[in-house]
Amino acid sequence: MNRQRPDRVSGEGALLVDLYELTMAQLYFERGIHETPALFEHSFRSYPDYGTHQAGYCVQAGLAGLLDWVERYRFDAPALEYLGTLTDPSGAALFKPAFLDWLPDVGFDAVDIWSVPEGRVVHAGVTLSVARGPLAVAQLLETALLNQLSYPTLIATKASLVAESARGRPALEFGVRRGPERGATVGSRAALIGGATTTSNVGAAMVIGAEPAGTHAHSMIQAMLALGSSELDAFRAYADCYPDNCVLLVDTVDTLESGLPNAITVFEELRAAGHEPVGIRLDSGDLAHLAIRSAQVLDAAGFDETTIVLSSGLDEMAIWQILTQIDGEAQEYGVDPENLIDRLAFGVGTKLLTSHGASALDGVYKLVAVADGGSWVPAVKISDSPLKTVIPGNKQVVRIYDRRRLADADVMALDSEDLTGADALELRHPLRHDLRREVRRAAISEIEPLLLPAWSQGKRLAEREPIATARGRRDSDLERLDPGVRRLMNPHVYHVSITQALWDLRRETVSQTHNH
Amino acid sequence: MNRQRPDRVSGEGALLVDLYELTMAQLYFERGIHETPALFEHSFRSYPDYGTHQAGYCVQAGLAGLLDWVERYRFDAPALEYLGTLTDPSGAALFKPAFLDWLPDVGFDAVDIWSVPEGRVVHAGVTLSVARGPLAVAQLLETALLNQLSYPTLIATKASLVAESARGRPALEFGVRRGPERGATVGSRAALIGGATTTSNVGAAMVIGAEPAGTHAHSMIQAMLALGSSELDAFRAYADCYPDNCVLLVDTVDTLESGLPNAITVFEELRAAGHEPVGIRLDSGDLAHLAIRSAQVLDAAGFDETTIVLSSGLDEMAIWQILTQIDGEAQEYGVDPENLIDRLAFGVGTKLLTSHGASALDGVYKLVAVADGGSWVPAVKISDSPLKTVIPGNKQVVRIYDRRRLADADVMALDSEDLTGADALELRHPLRHDLRREVRRAAISEIEPLLLPAWSQGKRLAEREPIATARGRRDSDLERLDPGVRRLMNPHVYHVSITQALWDLRRETVSQTHNH
Repeated sequence: MNRQRPDRVSGEGALLVDLYELTMAQLYFERGIHETPALFEHSFRSYPDYGTHQAGYCVQAGLAGLLDWVERYRFDAPALEYLGTLTDPSGAALFKPAFLDWLPDVGFDAVDIWSVPEGRVVHAGVTLSVARGPLAVAQLLETALLNQLSYPTLIATKASLVAESARGRPALEFGVRRGPERGATVGSRAALIGGATTTSNVGAAMVIGAEPAGTHAHSMIQAMLALGSSELDAFRAYADCYPDNCVLLVDTVDTLESGLPNAITVFEELRAAGHEPVGIRLDSGDLAHLAIRSAQVLDAAGFDETTIVLSSGLDEMAIWQILTQIDGEAQEYGVDPENLIDRLAFGVGTKLLTSHGASALDGVYKLVAVADGGSWVPAVKISDSPLKTVIPGNKQVVRIYDRRRLADADVMALDSEDLTGADALELRHPLRHDLRREVRRAAISEIEPLLLPAWSQGKRLAEREPIATARGRRDSDLERLDPGVRRLMNPHVYHVSITQALWDLRRETVSQTHNH
Repeated sequence: MNRQRPDRVSGEGALLVDLYELTMAQLYFERGIHETPALFEHSFRSYPDYGTHQAGYCVQAGLAGLLDWVERYRFDAPALEYLGTLTDPSGAALFKPAFLDWLPDVGFDAVDIWSVPEGRVVHAGVTLSVARGPLAVAQLLETALLNQLSYPTLIATKASLVAESARGRPALEFGVRRGPERGATVGSRAALIGGATTTSNVGAAMVIGAEPAGTHAHSMIQAMLALGSSELDAFRAYADCYPDNCVLLVDTVDTLESGLPNAITVFEELRAAGHEPVGIRLDSGDLAHLAIRSAQVLDAAGFDETTIVLSSGLDEMAIWQILTQIDGEAQEYGVDPENLIDRLAFGVGTKLLTSHGASALDGVYKLVAVADGGSWVPAVKISDSPLKTVIPGNKQVVRIYDRRRLADADVMALDSEDLTGADALELRHPLRHDLRREVRRAAISEIEPLLLPAWSQGKRLAEREPIATARGRRDSDLERLDPGVRRLMNPHVYHVSITQALWDLRRETVSQTHNH
């Protein structure tokens, strides 16, 4: 019952791997092809579909965590010992001693990784990372890479939609409580990359170098009430403790009858003592209506600049609806809707850190080529589900911008193609035969490579960087994205293309595989 | 750019906390009420609603991780140093030295925790954990507790629905790649508690003491093809490496034209060499149809007992549809549907570990009482959203079973009530005035307390236990649950009740709060 068990962290190092990668690695080892150079590519297949709406783009995140992991990756003695205990159904050892002896040599020093930097706007079906290295070693990276890029990208994307919906008003991330257990640490970070303004998660804030934010919960009022004080006493106690950071939660008893008048009393006392109150928070009821009514009362009391924080089940759709309602309803109460919206902030928790409506990003990591005698041989998989067919070959990935300097398409091409020098690019839809177009070089203002070196020869090339850097990439990419693609409902489909040469390579490879 | 940053694990210890718990704790400290005994209760508000269907029950999970965390919890020097750097908008230190001096004394030795054991079937709106201890200390537990119980319970619940839908056939968890980053470690564990048979997650398997499972991916076939071998060669290599654990993925080239005939060739060779092949895996296309066609071919070749593993976007709904289709279509191909279903296994990945359709469980942790002069004073919150109103008071929580020994209701009562000795229980719906019933004691076969001591005086009382123990609780609870509540679509609503005495206490407390 009480046997000693390994610490969870020990299971999240080299053993952050699916068993089949190890069984395949052993097979490669036994066949003597474990050191054959191989190319694996990572992408996601489709944009998050939230049911009510669908993202038209994603925001890349998670690379820093992946590289932290790659740096620390070791098959250490406890891991090897554990693998040595595994058996097949006949009771024989699953992993043979020779393979287990080789495993500690596996480090990612022999693998080179390219990736799209964090914060960049990225698209479905486009290669976002490439791992090049010995077949068995690159194979063993599959789960760790997908695990550490998929969820953060999902959350950065959701945060970006929230930020767009919030019309530039602050989005305060506070979802760690219902977030996916320890995954919430990177969830908070990804939210900040994607557009959230602050996080309530103190541990994550420390780790990523952000400033945590937060005020108080109902429990503070409840405790004071139960101990014989009043809501007003509780607010006073809070203002006394935090005179320059006083945001009061006004819905513990009754928002309009109790919380708001008490808050105003305390705000007046604060101001008399030389402090400026920060705001109130509404956490239940009809948030749009209560925001209008609160603004009306606060304005009348001379607090027309205090922030009104809204929270409770918010995401990009709820925020959009709240703002729409305020646009229509505020003037009935003598409140200017624009002024009100300019003082709002949004607490976004559960639905942000769990990507409400679309709980996963469908990331894949696929073998696209192996080296045979010094040249890359394309590797395919022909699937009964067209989206699952692999585009083979050693590629380059670029974004082309049109004359307005807006992003026109993400293009995958053979590595050997000269895209810059060509008079025109022959582009095809990756799957549909009928969708093709020629883009003249003169119509392209810029051809930008998307994949940058992240890790090579045991060295980290994508340096650790402040969150603001990744966030800046998002802002800049969104400015160069067609507004139709950014639209919340039914976004315009961004062009993802492959060149005619890559199309031909796939056709030939598939045909050879069928004939084999 | 490259400044030294703390390791993420350092942010997941004592700092797995939302900032507002710390600001409230400091307020309690400054008011001198930080050591006032307090009772906090944890529950979830509603069953996961997957859009297409809704769970009628949940499966409790996550307690072991929470207790591991509580045991290790420390405000260590780096955490205190970090907190000391935080400032308010005026630039003053957010936390005062006296409070930071006190913080290291905070350990959960002073808090007692009761909880429903892992694996038990649990219900919305019922208290599932109680923390009793000094106000400031119990307050600081909020985020860590919710974070570590909500996601695992969500996943154990999804796994239970998958297992129910799979009609007893194995459900193989392999979602770590797209799971929520490090949260996937506990996700795999929770899936096993809820009914998954195995996990592919090697690290999680090691940590939780389970056997990992897995075979090979398309990449193995692709690599061999690109290096000039055939699919048949690749299968042979795999069978050679794993003669007693040979499951072959047959859809890399063409399932019916290539993969299946090649697999049968290798199976025949294996059998001739004295080994029994295990099975095939289908990962794309119309899985129900391909399973039928595969069974037909395997049967004809004398492999009528090999397993057919299905994977690709599966969850409880997809499995239900596949089995329904097989029920209707198999006989057209001369395949007995029951025989076919008896040889199936289901690989369930992304949709299990991310709870597709319902990405979060809405767990809450609410103050329900504080001690004043030796007796518990109930604490309420009156919300504009009825579901958010707190049921105050020091309570007991029991499950009552009817004469058929089926669970009839989960009942919350005052701790002081004698439920066993009463002739009848006066039960009320927690929210609706019009729903009440009297249950005669004679109609009750058993009154079972649900909350057990988990942690007291710095000691772990809920011992570490094998996964099978928690899983056994689930099996046993499901047997005593009305089949209507277990139903996948539109489940019958299980009774959650409060006693008349608790109803009265809430009414009085709310009334006093309003009058205050």
